Amino acid sequence: MKLGTLKDTTRDGRLVIVSKDLTRCSEVPHIARTLQAALDDWEHVAPRLLAVAEGIETGGQPTKRFHERDAHSPLPRAYQWADGSAYVNHVELVRRARGAEMPESFWTDPLMYQGGSDSFLPPRDPIRFPAEAVPGWGVDFEAEIAVVVGDVPLGADETTCRDAIRLVMLVNDVSLRSLIPGELGKGFGFFQAKPSSAFSPVAVTPDELGSAWDGGRLSLPLLVALNGDPFGKADAGADMTFDFPKLIAHATRTRPLAAGTIIGSGTVSNKGRDGGPGQPIAAGGVGYSCLAEIRMVETIESGAMKTPFMAFGDTVRIEMADQSGHSIFGAIEQTLEEAA
Amino acid sequence: MKLGTLKDTTRDGRLVIVSKDLTRCSEVPHIARTLQAALDDWEHVAPRLLAVAEGIETGGQPTKRFHERDAHSPLPRAYQWADGSAYVNHVELVRRARGAEMPESFWTDPLMYQGGSDSFLPPRDPIRFPAEAVPGWGVDFEAEIAVVVGDVPLGADETTCRDAIRLVMLVNDVSLRSLIPGELGKGFGFFQAKPSSAFSPVAVTPDELGSAWDGGRLSLPLLVALNGDPFGKADAGADMTFDFPKLIAHATRTRPLAAGTIIGSGTVSNKGRDGGPGQPIAAGGVGYSCLAEIRMVETIESGAMKTPFMAFGDTVRIEMADQSGHSIFGAIEQTLEEAA
Repeated sequence: MKLGTLKDTTRDGRLVIVSKDLTRCSEVPHIARTLQAALDDWEHVAPRLLAVAEGIETGGQPTKRFHERDAHSPLPRAYQWADGSAYVNHVELVRRARGAEMPESFWTDPLMYQGGSDSFLPPRDPIRFPAEAVPGWGVDFEAEIAVVVGDVPLGADETTCRDAIRLVMLVNDVSLRSLIPGELGKGFGFFQAKPSSAFSPVAVTPDELGSAWDGGRLSLPLLVALNGDPFGKADAGADMTFDFPKLIAHATRTRPLAAGTIIGSGTVSNKGRDGGPGQPIAAGGVGYSCLAEIRMVETIESGAMKTPFMAFGDTVRIEMADQSGHSIFGAIEQTLEEAA
Repeated sequence: MKLGTLKDTTRDGRLVIVSKDLTRCSEVPHIARTLQAALDDWEHVAPRLLAVAEGIETGGQPTKRFHERDAHSPLPRAYQWADGSAYVNHVELVRRARGAEMPESFWTDPLMYQGGSDSFLPPRDPIRFPAEAVPGWGVDFEAEIAVVVGDVPLGADETTCRDAIRLVMLVNDVSLRSLIPGELGKGFGFFQAKPSSAFSPVAVTPDELGSAWDGGRLSLPLLVALNGDPFGKADAGADMTFDFPKLIAHATRTRPLAAGTIIGSGTVSNKGRDGGPGQPIAAGGVGYSCLAEIRMVETIESGAMKTPFMAFGDTVRIEMADQSGHSIFGAIEQTLEEAA
């Protein structure tokens, strides 16, 4: 089942069930007005939504056209967005580029930060910052996978966490690289450096992912393009040190998680074939899921960063295709614009 | 106007308007079912809620008894909880106790962390942790002031931020002190160390605070008791280096804030009369708003911490009285219990 949220005049938009091929959808106000409402009562609501989804595929359910540009993030606002950093390769590269050792514990104890969740960007809307942001803030994208969970009790084990995964989607975790060092130096973690994120036009139940989903990892290339050129196609299932059940269990160590909590994977990142830093697509590698990573590789290999952060007018596109080449989640496609 | 949320079988409870003396209340489902719904449409909803509040005081409005123990946190879950650390005295003490210098910039650049907001504790419910939490996690309370804002645009100036303050309330920001050093050492900020917080039984509009509220600071003692003994009565208006408009402006530097965002002051903390660390109430001082602070003062003065963190069975009470001695927000009163 694929679920989306159409933008309207309300803060939460309205829930729609979307056809597997992303061309048609049905509104379901008689079942659940919003995705959060569905997640709040998933056990009762999901079977009814599934019946609609089946009707869409068989033709028995009235539908209308679904346009990705009309979609908001599946949860336009959420009660929790916690983002891990499960691809430890990415973390190690960041550290190595600045000459710092990464603690060994990073391979066994997940990194996770609390993100802001009060207003996400629609997946096709621009990212808007004031003039000082370019180049001052170092605007970057981060292509990631995220899951939405149901209620998870305090101290849940990994099996419970695995069973709590309701939906899977893509993320653009917009990051302001130049604000990060100062902010992390203060010790309280990210705040200004992590403005609103955007999620893919649809979120899907894990069964839509077939054999690419093993219950904890999504083994398909995450396609990232910058201004129309392929920039990354890293396999989201490879080099993911902590799978989603591990990330969720980390989050529940000291508190329960409420239904609708979004847990992110962190920037998807693959090692190179020789185990070292990955190579750009142009050099035969799988490329990168953020600009910071190519800049780190440039630093390690040539001593200087060549690729700039995003400029006004730059467009990033994030998408994932199934084994047949069809878009699973629709595309995040965002242009950086100057705020009025 | 005083607003509360009664616990019921729903996740968001139901909004009530509470009498100024906290003894009676009226449900208002015909105006707004939940506090978040009221905040989402405050300009239209607030005047209607105010008419109910006036009716409660004049006797024209039907009411029922209001019991603080029936109240949930005013927002049982919220889309954002961002907590500042505006009493820089507190931060300086923490650092000093461990022999670290505090950067000068901390006096001009606010500290703020992104907190979890998916499930707050009701103000009279126990705080429940597994056995390993005592003494392993170092369970502490933090008594704070918080405001709830309306929509605030990206890059708002302090006047706009001041005008966006809708409600004021108290917080117990439960903190797991022994988990903080490891977590902050990883660089991503608090996560496990900041489990669910609790807020006072009612939130009030700023006009309820009279001359104690100057638009940015609340100048009244914040009363903290531990197992029935007075522990703190620090003036929340004194030594607050960054007032709420400054904290809100800090939060909006790179993104808008959505209606219902909660901004916290951080642990209220006063300097001693000589400008040094504050003294315990028993020694004639105003005491403390968290256990960590008395432990820091003990370390600075005697080289060793004497006061332990919370044990199972310990109860913390947080309240604020107006100039006439009447409770403004009702009391947060929570006992630490072992989770089943």
